[in-house]
Amino acid sequence: MLSGDPARPAAPLRVTVWNENLHETADDTVARRYPDGIHGAVAAALRDHLGQRVRLRTATLREPDHGLGGEVIDTTDVLVWWGHLAHDEVTDEVVERVRRRVLAGMGLVVLHSGHYSRIFRALMGTTCSLRWRNAAERELVWTVAPGHPIAQGVPDPLVIPAQETYSEPFDVPAPEELVFISSFAGGEVFRSGCAYRRGAGRIFYFGPGDQDYPVYHHPDVRRVVANAVLWAAPGPQGAREPVSGEVPAGWFERGQGD
Amino acid sequence: MLSGDPARPAAPLRVTVWNENLHETADDTVARRYPDGIHGAVAAALRDHLGQRVRLRTATLREPDHGLGGEVIDTTDVLVWWGHLAHDEVTDEVVERVRRRVLAGMGLVVLHSGHYSRIFRALMGTTCSLRWRNAAERELVWTVAPGHPIAQGVPDPLVIPAQETYSEPFDVPAPEELVFISSFAGGEVFRSGCAYRRGAGRIFYFGPGDQDYPVYHHPDVRRVVANAVLWAAPGPQGAREPVSGEVPAGWFERGQGD
Amino acid sequence: MLSGDPARPAAPLRVTVWNENLHETADDTVARRYPDGIHGAVAAALRDHLGQRVRLRTATLREPDHGLGGEVIDTTDVLVWWGHLAHDEVTDEVVERVRRRVLAGMGLVVLHSGHYSRIFRALMGTTCSLRWRNAAERELVWTVAPGHPIAQGVPDPLVIPAQETYSEPFDVPAPEELVFISSFAGGEVFRSGCAYRRGAGRIFYFGPGDQDYPVYHHPDVRRVVANAVLWAAPGPQGAREPVSGEVPAGWFERGQGD
Amino acid sequence: MLSGDPARPAAPLRVTVWNENLHETADDTVARRYPDGIHGAVAAALRDHLGQRVRLRTATLREPDHGLGGEVIDTTDVLVWWGHLAHDEVTDEVVERVRRRVLAGMGLVVLHSGHYSRIFRALMGTTCSLRWRNAAERELVWTVAPGHPIAQGVPDPLVIPAQETYSEPFDVPAPEELVFISSFAGGEVFRSGCAYRRGAGRIFYFGPGDQDYPVYHHPDVRRVVANAVLWAAPGPQGAREPVSGEVPAGWFERGQGD
Repeated sequence: MLSGDPARPAAPLRVTVWNENLHETADDTVARRYPDGIHGAVAAALRDHLGQRVRLRTATLREPDHGLGGEVIDTTDVLVWWGHLAHDEVTDEVVERVRRRVLAGMGLVVLHSGHYSRIFRALMGTTCSLRWRNAAERELVWTVAPGHPIAQGVPDPLVIPAQETYSEPFDVPAPEELVFISSFAGGEVFRSGCAYRRGAGRIFYFGPGDQDYPVYHHPDVRRVVANAVLWAAPGPQGAREPVSGEVPAGWFERGQGD
Repeated sequence: MLSGDPARPAAPLRVTVWNENLHETADDTVARRYPDGIHGAVAAALRDHLGQRVRLRTATLREPDHGLGGEVIDTTDVLVWWGHLAHDEVTDEVVERVRRRVLAGMGLVVLHSGHYSRIFRALMGTTCSLRWRNAAERELVWTVAPGHPIAQGVPDPLVIPAQETYSEPFDVPAPEELVFISSFAGGEVFRSGCAYRRGAGRIFYFGPGDQDYPVYHHPDVRRVVANAVLWAAPGPQGAREPVSGEVPAGWFERGQGD
Repeated sequence: MLSGDPARPAAPLRVTVWNENLHETADDTVARRYPDGIHGAVAAALRDHLGQRVRLRTATLREPDHGLGGEVIDTTDVLVWWGHLAHDEVTDEVVERVRRRVLAGMGLVVLHSGHYSRIFRALMGTTCSLRWRNAAERELVWTVAPGHPIAQGVPDPLVIPAQETYSEPFDVPAPEELVFISSFAGGEVFRSGCAYRRGAGRIFYFGPGDQDYPVYHHPDVRRVVANAVLWAAPGPQGAREPVSGEVPAGWFERGQGD
Repeated sequence: MLSGDPARPAAPLRVTVWNENLHETADDTVARRYPDGIHGAVAAALRDHLGQRVRLRTATLREPDHGLGGEVIDTTDVLVWWGHLAHDEVTDEVVERVRRRVLAGMGLVVLHSGHYSRIFRALMGTTCSLRWRNAAERELVWTVAPGHPIAQGVPDPLVIPAQETYSEPFDVPAPEELVFISSFAGGEVFRSGCAYRRGAGRIFYFGPGDQDYPVYHHPDVRRVVANAVLWAAPGPQGAREPVSGEVPAGWFERGQGD
C-alpha cells in the first residue's frame, strides 16, 4: 500500500515471526518467561498493536526447512527474526531464499542477538560483531530521529530496567537512518535502532531483547516492534526481482518502463 | 498516521499547494497551459490520486501574507511549493514560520524552480544553485531507489518529451534518499528526486515542472507529486516543536519521556 | 592537497581559530583555566600536533569585524569556531561571508556551544537545539566509525572526567558520517562527533569543551581537534564558488569542463 | 597516514592491482589494446600519478592463489580489482581473506565489471546487478560531490568517447558518498562513482573501463583511479581486526581504550 494511505482498504500484511526456539525448550526459566516462546510473545505484540492489519504466522528452527520452506517466504511481506545459539544451523538455501526475497521487497526486522544471524550478516556484508556483557544493567533507548515512523508513540527515552549490555563498536554499515541510540548503566553506548534499504526491501535492526529478561513483555518495546513491521512493509506493487540484463538503445521509447 | 496503516480510519491530510502565480497572470501562453494556475493543476493531480485522503487548499504570493497567514501554516500537514520569478518577495516572517513548522513535522514538497526559493535555501543551508538551459529537451527520470514509496507506480524511466534542462552541480546537501536521477537529451544529469529529513519533518525536492511545458498534466509526474505528498506526511502525533532546554539528572525516571 | 599525499611538499594549512573570548575576560576562574583564552588553548593544541603543517591565526568577537574582516576569511583554509554567550552579536555580513567560503571549500570545525552559533545554524538549516545540564558528569566519547581519520589515535572510549552534559534530541540534519557518540554519567547520549559536507566544504561538529572544565587541555580532546582540522582541509584546488548559470547544449564538447 | 598530512615522511602505500587477465590472453584485439594487461595499464596510471608514494604489485587469476596468497593480502594497503569472465573461479578462501582485510582497514577499488565480482557482492550484500549494452556510446561522467578528494583535478564532465553502457537500476546499497553520475548517449544514467565504508575499510566503485575500449589509457580516468587509491588508503594505525567480545563493567577505567 502507499505509505500512510488512510482510505484504501488494503490486504493485511503477511508477517512471519521466526524464532530459533532453543532457549525456551532447554531452559525452564526462559520457558516460564516466554511460555509461548519468544516468537509467541512477539506475535502477541503484533496482534495487540496491529490487529486486523496483519496476518500472522510463526516459524522455528527445528521445523522442516526451519518453517520457511515451500510457499512461506514467497507469501511473507515482513519477516521478524530472533536467533542466538544456532545461527550456523540455518541452511545456505534458506539464507539465500530470504536474502533474495528481501532484495525483491520483503521487509526484515532483526532482533537483538539476530545481529549475528547468517541472513543479517549476508545482507550487511560486515561481521556485525559487538561488545557485550550480561549484567542486568538498565538500558535507556534514546530517539535520535524524531518524527521517524518507528519512534511514533515511543517514550524518549524508553527505559528498560534490566537488559544485556550491547556496546560499540557495532560492525555494521552506517545505518541509512539511525533511529535509536542506547546507553547502559555501565556507560556503554550502542546504535540500537538501525534502518537500511537493500534492493527494494527494508531492514530494521533493534537491539533490545535478550532471553534472560522479559523485554518482549515491555509495552514500549512491543510498540517499537509493531512500528518496525509497518515501516518495513513493501509498497503496493509487492515484491519482485531486481531488473537487470542487456537492453537495446531506446528500449524505453518503444514500450514502457516497468 | 502510521506508515502504511490500512485499517485505522484517519483524518484526511491537510495539504496546501502554494504557487507564486505570476507567469499565469502575466503570460497568455502560460495562462492557457495552466488555466487554473500551476497550483490548480497540482491540486487537481492530488485530488485525482488521493481523493478523500486529502483536504486541499491553495495559496498564492499576492494574497495577504502570501495566503499563508493566520492559521494556514498551523493547520497544514504537507505544503507544496512552486515559485520562480519572485522568491525574494516572500517575507522573512513567512519563511521562518514555514521553516519552524517543517522542523516540527510538516511535510514540504518543493517543485522545479522552487530550488531557489527562500524556504528551501533556508532549510538546506546551501546556495541550491544549478546549471540550466531552456531548450525543450527530453528528460528521462530514472528511479534509483526501487521500492521507495515515491517511486511506486512510476514508470522507469519516466519520459517527459520536452522540459527545461537542469544540470549538476546541484548545490544541495547530499540527499538522504536519492530517489530519481534525470538525464536530458543534451547529456546533462540532475538529481531530480531528493528526500531529506529536517527536525521531525520531511522534505522532497522534485525537478520536473517548468511553466513553459505542460509537465503538471503529465500523468506520471502527477503520480510522483501525489506519492511525495503521502511520503512527506507527518505521523499521528502531528507536528510539535523540538524538545530542548535544561534537564535535571534522572528526569526520565521520575516521570515519562514525551 | 590530495588526501594522504605523503610525498608532495605542501603549503601549510592556513587555520584561523575563532573564539568569542567573553568568559575568559569576565570570569576569573575561566581566565585562570584558559590564560590565553580558549582560542589560545586550541591553537596550542594544533601547534603541538600539526607543527609546520599549519599556519595559525586567532580571532575574537570584539576585534573589528570579529577579527574576520578584510582578507582573513579569504585566506583561511580551516576555521575553528567557539562561541557561547553572544552568538547574536556576530554580524549578518560575517555569517554570510563564512557560509559562502565554506560552500566554496573552506573547512569549518565547530566546538561545543558553537552548536548554537549563527554560522552553524545557517549551514545546518535546523534549530541545532539540544538538552543540557551543567553537573560535572563524566563524559565517555565512543568511536562508532573505526578507521575514520578523525578517530585516528583517539582512545575508545575517550574519557573526560567532568563535563557539561549535552543530550539528544540534537536538532541537526543526520550527520553524513557519525564519528563519535557520547554517554554521560546521568545516562544521556549525544551525537558528539558529526561530519558534514556542504558545497565543496567540510564541517565537523565536536561536542566536548565547556568553559567550566579544562577540556581543551585534555590530550585526547586536543588530538581530536587536530585530526578534525586536517580532515576538514580543502583539496589542492583550493576554494572556489559553486558553478551555476545557463549553459548551451554541448558546451562540454567545445572546451573543457572545469 | 593522517589525511592530508604534508610533513611527516610516510611509508609508501602498498598497492596491489588484481586483474583476471583472461581477455588479454584470449583476444588479440584486447591484447593489442592492453599489451601489459589491464593490470599493467592501471599500475602504470598509478605509477605516473603517485610515483614514490606507492609501492606497486600486480596479481592475476591464474597465478597460484590468484596471486593473493601468503603474505600478499596482509601486506596490501589498497587493492584494485578488475574481473569479468571468471568471477566464480575466485575461491571462497580468497574472497573471505580479502573481505576480512577490508573490514580491518584495507582499501578496495573495484573497477567496471568488477561490480559482479564475488568480493564486491559479499561486501555489499546485494546482487550488484545492472542493465547494460555494448554499443560504443559516449559516456559523460559528472561530478556530484564537488570538493571530494576523488574528483580533484577531474574535468566535469569527464568525457569518454566510447564505452560500454551501464544503466540503473544498479542494485547496490545507497552509496555513502555518491561522487559521480554518468549519462550515456542512449539516455541511460548510472551511479558510476560510489564510495562506501565497511568496518575500518573504504571501498570505491568506479564504472568506466571495459576491455573493448582504451579507457584505462584515458588521462582523466587514470587520474580518478589514482585519486581513488589515495582516498581508500587506511590511516596510520594500519589495518586491524574489529574489536568484539565480552567486556567487564568499567573496563575502560582500569586501563585504556584501544
